[in-house]
Amino acid sequence: MKIRKAVVTAAGRRQRGIPLQRVIDRDGTEKSVLRALLDELLTGPLEELALVVAPGDEAAYLELAGEHRSRVRILVQQEPGGYGPAIACARDFTAGEPFFHCVSDHLFVSTLAPGGLTRQLVELAEAQGCAVSAVQATPERMLTDFGAVGGQRLPGQDSLYRVQEVLEKPTPTEAEQRLAVPGLRAGHYLCFFGMHVLTPAVMEWLAAGEVAHLSEALARLARRETYLAAELPARRYDLGLPYGLLTGQLALALAGRDREDVLARLVELLAVSRA
Amino acid sequence: MKIRKAVVTAAGRRQRGIPLQRVIDRDGTEKSVLRALLDELLTGPLEELALVVAPGDEAAYLELAGEHRSRVRILVQQEPGGYGPAIACARDFTAGEPFFHCVSDHLFVSTLAPGGLTRQLVELAEAQGCAVSAVQATPERMLTDFGAVGGQRLPGQDSLYRVQEVLEKPTPTEAEQRLAVPGLRAGHYLCFFGMHVLTPAVMEWLAAGEVAHLSEALARLARRETYLAAELPARRYDLGLPYGLLTGQLALALAGRDREDVLARLVELLAVSRA
Repeated sequence: MKIRKAVVTAAGRRQRGIPLQRVIDRDGTEKSVLRALLDELLTGPLEELALVVAPGDEAAYLELAGEHRSRVRILVQQEPGGYGPAIACARDFTAGEPFFHCVSDHLFVSTLAPGGLTRQLVELAEAQGCAVSAVQATPERMLTDFGAVGGQRLPGQDSLYRVQEVLEKPTPTEAEQRLAVPGLRAGHYLCFFGMHVLTPAVMEWLAAGEVAHLSEALARLARRETYLAAELPARRYDLGLPYGLLTGQLALALAGRDREDVLARLVELLAVSRA
Repeated sequence: MKIRKAVVTAAGRRQRGIPLQRVIDRDGTEKSVLRALLDELLTGPLEELALVVAPGDEAAYLELAGEHRSRVRILVQQEPGGYGPAIACARDFTAGEPFFHCVSDHLFVSTLAPGGLTRQLVELAEAQGCAVSAVQATPERMLTDFGAVGGQRLPGQDSLYRVQEVLEKPTPTEAEQRLAVPGLRAGHYLCFFGMHVLTPAVMEWLAAGEVAHLSEALARLARRETYLAAELPARRYDLGLPYGLLTGQLALALAGRDREDVLARLVELLAVSRA
């Protein structure tokens, strides 16, 4: 199994506009969220990327692709309708191959060089020959914001799980009953990170409309194929949540070149701030 | 002396785009930087506001004015050229009256209700019958980013100064020699806050092209009229500086409704962050 193509969704109402926001990256350069994402996804094993956008957004997104432009195909999702139909827009693009899927409204913060996370996930999927979703151990109070998986840790593997269940934004009760993962920190669940390697079957189910939501497709995947979840050495920050951009930008700054300067500002702000 | 009109400059290359950025205000509502500024400036004694923008930006700015729209006049600065000429675009608007002037690329953070800072500055200028610039005691290392004034504290006044000198972005040596203010914390200077009440003479000098820069006009003002500087119970965050938006947003959040939530995130981020 060889992963060459990525599908990035940026057409949803919730994330519209977020990829166009500007952030200061770990190296101190200012860029759009989209550009930071493309730097991560296209500095590594992936060759081509389809970016699914809403009608009217084509030019703005293509312009921000900058030097990656020749490897980015813009696809337009004509009707609004969630991640599942957005991914299905790229059916001709993936052309029956397994593919990398990534959301466009998260910041991914790690200490790896750009491309490092993508490479880890791709190499893992290729080595295991199956679908793999990146996940992050996430406290129960944040279950309202993410999809989550349940499963078992693979023997002898620290951060690799066999997925048995997939639930979108489960209640704490559902999570406790169906998604508890032995060995995980108490009160934590494996929530999606926003990056996946998916098999052609997922694209077929979505394109045929057999399942409407990506999480349903992933639940079916867990029943029919080997489907793994992997914790990567990184954290994802969902910029669409309240204070998401603030939190993500701060995480980037604290992981980067300007860490000391930003820490000094933090201390100063705390000193003068009052409720 | 009665202050009814405000002139807000948003045409400079440096600040273009910043007023359109979105922030979460102290009350937890998301709004544009411009809208937060208009809420401050038009919830108080000021009646009308001229917003000086670059060609092509008219519609975007007017739309963000929202419910303040009927009190906002959009003026276009046809040729690029600094704060001075931008203010001069509003000569017919101010029509010989003293006026409030405010920049559009700062966030102003205080514990007062919206309009409170504007009211304090306007009432002070009206009571004193002269021009007043708001200032903030600022450490020497930030002199490269602001205009600064030198002068003497008024007898019996904690935070009111008679201005004798005005220098734009002075060197530390210039500042030490010409802007030292007795009684101020060591290594600190009175730098502009971004809000001023100015007299008609300033508009005339700028409109006639007798002085090119606002700071030159203010230096002349200090020689010809009574000109005060006032520290307000607030801090300004210049969003155009590196990490300006991050710092300003964080200051707003720490002064607002979501303080505890944001503090908790900060601690969590610090716990997981690594250089």
